[in-house]
Amino acid sequence: MPYRRSDMDAATINAAVREVFAGDAARCAEVGPGYAVAHLTPEPAQLRPGGYVSGPTQFAVADAALWYLAFVAIDRFEPMALTAELSMRFLRPAIGSEVWAKATLEVCGRRNVVGSVRIWTDDAQDRPCAVAQGTYALPLPRP
Amino acid sequence: MPYRRSDMDAATINAAVREVFAGDAARCAEVGPGYAVAHLTPEPAQLRPGGYVSGPTQFAVADAALWYLAFVAIDRFEPMALTAELSMRFLRPAIGSEVWAKATLEVCGRRNVVGSVRIWTDDAQDRPCAVAQGTYALPLPRP
Amino acid sequence: MPYRRSDMDAATINAAVREVFAGDAARCAEVGPGYAVAHLTPEPAQLRPGGYVSGPTQFAVADAALWYLAFVAIDRFEPMALTAELSMRFLRPAIGSEVWAKATLEVCGRRNVVGSVRIWTDDAQDRPCAVAQGTYALPLPRP
Amino acid sequence: MPYRRSDMDAATINAAVREVFAGDAARCAEVGPGYAVAHLTPEPAQLRPGGYVSGPTQFAVADAALWYLAFVAIDRFEPMALTAELSMRFLRPAIGSEVWAKATLEVCGRRNVVGSVRIWTDDAQDRPCAVAQGTYALPLPRP
Repeated sequence: MPYRRSDMDAATINAAVREVFAGDAARCAEVGPGYAVAHLTPEPAQLRPGGYVSGPTQFAVADAALWYLAFVAIDRFEPMALTAELSMRFLRPAIGSEVWAKATLEVCGRRNVVGSVRIWTDDAQDRPCAVAQGTYALPLPRP
Repeated sequence: MPYRRSDMDAATINAAVREVFAGDAARCAEVGPGYAVAHLTPEPAQLRPGGYVSGPTQFAVADAALWYLAFVAIDRFEPMALTAELSMRFLRPAIGSEVWAKATLEVCGRRNVVGSVRIWTDDAQDRPCAVAQGTYALPLPRP
Repeated sequence: MPYRRSDMDAATINAAVREVFAGDAARCAEVGPGYAVAHLTPEPAQLRPGGYVSGPTQFAVADAALWYLAFVAIDRFEPMALTAELSMRFLRPAIGSEVWAKATLEVCGRRNVVGSVRIWTDDAQDRPCAVAQGTYALPLPRP
Repeated sequence: MPYRRSDMDAATINAAVREVFAGDAARCAEVGPGYAVAHLTPEPAQLRPGGYVSGPTQFAVADAALWYLAFVAIDRFEPMALTAELSMRFLRPAIGSEVWAKATLEVCGRRNVVGSVRIWTDDAQDRPCAVAQGTYALPLPRP
């Protein structure tokens, strides 16, 4: 797929997100043509018995990756890009101390950005603990 | 739908969950034939700018409601019932200080429990901020 | 939920749909405040071995019910209302000669209509063969 | 991801599917390590006004691709592998005379096969009309 070049890099995204949402635990680790990677270090309260990263924490990283992907796709920071829908499939126990999610662009339209996401822990990128697909809604121009 | 009577009540579920997962912020507020209600009081870090309850927090409450529903459906506490998949649709800004999710049973089979979920804040039960549908996988008997 | 009264009844919807899409096998069986029911009689090619109604046929009925629901929700026929996303969960073998789907309104906004759907065969309304949730996108006013 | 070599090739899959389900309009076009491609030529009744391939037809091709992928993943034909859940996202009008779907393996466990799917028409593989993710349930060994 031919992607537009984007001025959104990871540092720019992290600085802009911090400005509006200081409490966010996720950060942008990397972006590139048609993808964005999010990273989160779970706190003890986000671990289930046995050391598994909780489902909602995996959702949080997937959602963050799609948010960053939306910035890349539209080539600007847009805090009012909002999750419209997101479906998660849990594949394996998520054991590890770092959680990663890579969102890949499926389409960027006038209204929506759709992406697919793979989530993994530590360095097990080829053994995802979950996959997801979802839609970010872009704010419409004022009529 | 005819539901089996269940010995799982909210107090029993909360006590059992606390035993295995002390850190869980959600609690079971109510159960009945074919449904379970989860409740969570968001912490400041779970609020987005403008006071919105974050998407992952809404996911967490929906997921908890489905977990409690699985206990009701199989009529026992089963910590190894795990989310197989869950899809969320976000409908409105989630503004409020309390988050609720009611999961309704669609089917309980040998392998899975499927339910539909409505999520709302404060007393706005008839104006859900999100809806969800998902599947909990039940542990299989050892062969 | 308080619903707007709608002038869209089943006969009006069926006539309008036939006009633009003569080949559609589904028809609107009933509408009411916040819901719509679709009906389809599967042809032999839509049955799997053993007489099961195929998954795509169940999807077709669910999708039709959501389409009719969108007309009810916006109170007009809108052929350019399009499925944005739809997730299906299959619960039981779909055995029967008639397929029904009831879509219930979750929200109707400026951009989208979101609904939940239950699908069943013959008179087994309380034993759904599938459930679904999905989003219809409404055409935006021209800028 | 390291994939097991599979004896399931497209011809073997098509012959086995025809045996149990003669009416199926889709066919397997290609398989390889961790993927399967399905193909369908829509009949006139599967086209919407304007020549668009209908949503249920796109669902049918996506579902077929996941079915073939399940055979590849478990390395045998298994007619009782059944769709547990499938979520579709529609990205663009599906204009064309041939529909293709490529399903990519996310995980193959004892109970389930999970895959991601891209759907396109004619030769527009890099401009998908829809994407999907879903789960096939494998039959459990008899206890």
